[in-house]
Amino acid sequence: MSTDDAPAPPTEADLLDATWQQVTPEAARRMLIAAVQAFAQRGYHATTTRDIAALAGMSPAAVYIHYRSKEELLFQISRLGHELALEVLRGVADSEDGPAARMAAAVRAFARWHAEFHTTAKVVQYELAALSAEHHAQIAALRRRTEALLRGMIADGVTAGVFAVPDLTGATLAVLSLCIDVARWYRPGGRRDPGQIGDLYADLVLRMLGAA
Amino acid sequence: MSTDDAPAPPTEADLLDATWQQVTPEAARRMLIAAVQAFAQRGYHATTTRDIAALAGMSPAAVYIHYRSKEELLFQISRLGHELALEVLRGVADSEDGPAARMAAAVRAFARWHAEFHTTAKVVQYELAALSAEHHAQIAALRRRTEALLRGMIADGVTAGVFAVPDLTGATLAVLSLCIDVARWYRPGGRRDPGQIGDLYADLVLRMLGAA
Repeated sequence: MSTDDAPAPPTEADLLDATWQQVTPEAARRMLIAAVQAFAQRGYHATTTRDIAALAGMSPAAVYIHYRSKEELLFQISRLGHELALEVLRGVADSEDGPAARMAAAVRAFARWHAEFHTTAKVVQYELAALSAEHHAQIAALRRRTEALLRGMIADGVTAGVFAVPDLTGATLAVLSLCIDVARWYRPGGRRDPGQIGDLYADLVLRMLGAA
Repeated sequence: MSTDDAPAPPTEADLLDATWQQVTPEAARRMLIAAVQAFAQRGYHATTTRDIAALAGMSPAAVYIHYRSKEELLFQISRLGHELALEVLRGVADSEDGPAARMAAAVRAFARWHAEFHTTAKVVQYELAALSAEHHAQIAALRRRTEALLRGMIADGVTAGVFAVPDLTGATLAVLSLCIDVARWYRPGGRRDPGQIGDLYADLVLRMLGAA
């Protein structure tokens, strides 16, 4: 019912479709999206494969054609979710900009991603303890790559004399934490849209790193 | 089996006892502590009052002597948890120190609290959506008071010319978010203890606020 020419913002369903478009076949994708929604709303342990099948409009047995178990679904969500977030950082890591501009771009993109894809990010961040030991180790490796990428960008700025950071590991931790926690508090339609949150955080992080 | 004179760090059970000592009678406290543990581990929706009673070593019927429902337990945890965190901030808000020293003390105490009492903080922060509308409104009021207290401390620094903050609401949001997210990533026995996390964050926040 919009009366101006601005396009309507994407719905939650649009965003989930966009997040998971690489998952095929379509039935596996529908099931995975249903699992993200159910886990985000009621938590992993309160969700049954039957709940997920019902939400996806499929039979309970159909889940097992594509996923060995509920834990396997969580693992795929976690693995792909972490890879998507890592991709966002990699997209700016190779830019020719100086360290400060590159760091600002990284924080802007990473914070924005956690707002826009907050439903997926919540499941990815809050259900880690439900993964099997083997799956948890794989996810931990992805998290270390994300952290190393960000730490490298901060270290480049220190080397170039652009940042002043007394505790590199601590600063990396704080930047990651700040961006990830956006998924907890962000509400669509709130005071700031994902792009504005990205801009705010890029500015705050540059200050935190003592950008010259 | 410690061989030096340093006191052993408090156990998780010690910390939960310390957090909830004001809850009486003792049976109500045991039940509330059991609920915190169960909600933190498996989530609110996956926990039954029967699980809570079993963990507390009591009969399922005993829960209802002290709490009307599982939601009432969550509300009491959330209300008292928010009040404890608010108390931590209030403890420094009236200090005679200048705005920068006061803000550092506030962040140090608030971040430290979210590490030390991470189990309680996780339940308080991640299960808000499970509260009834009426209870949610009461908790939202407590959250607004916490935010106002922190915003006031930042504003005092701006007025005194000690902080340079282009977006007061945005900076307040980031400081709160940074401290709260400690409850997600903190692990007892990890690289930094709660006091060291407090020190790190106090320094990073002062930089973020452009402290002179």
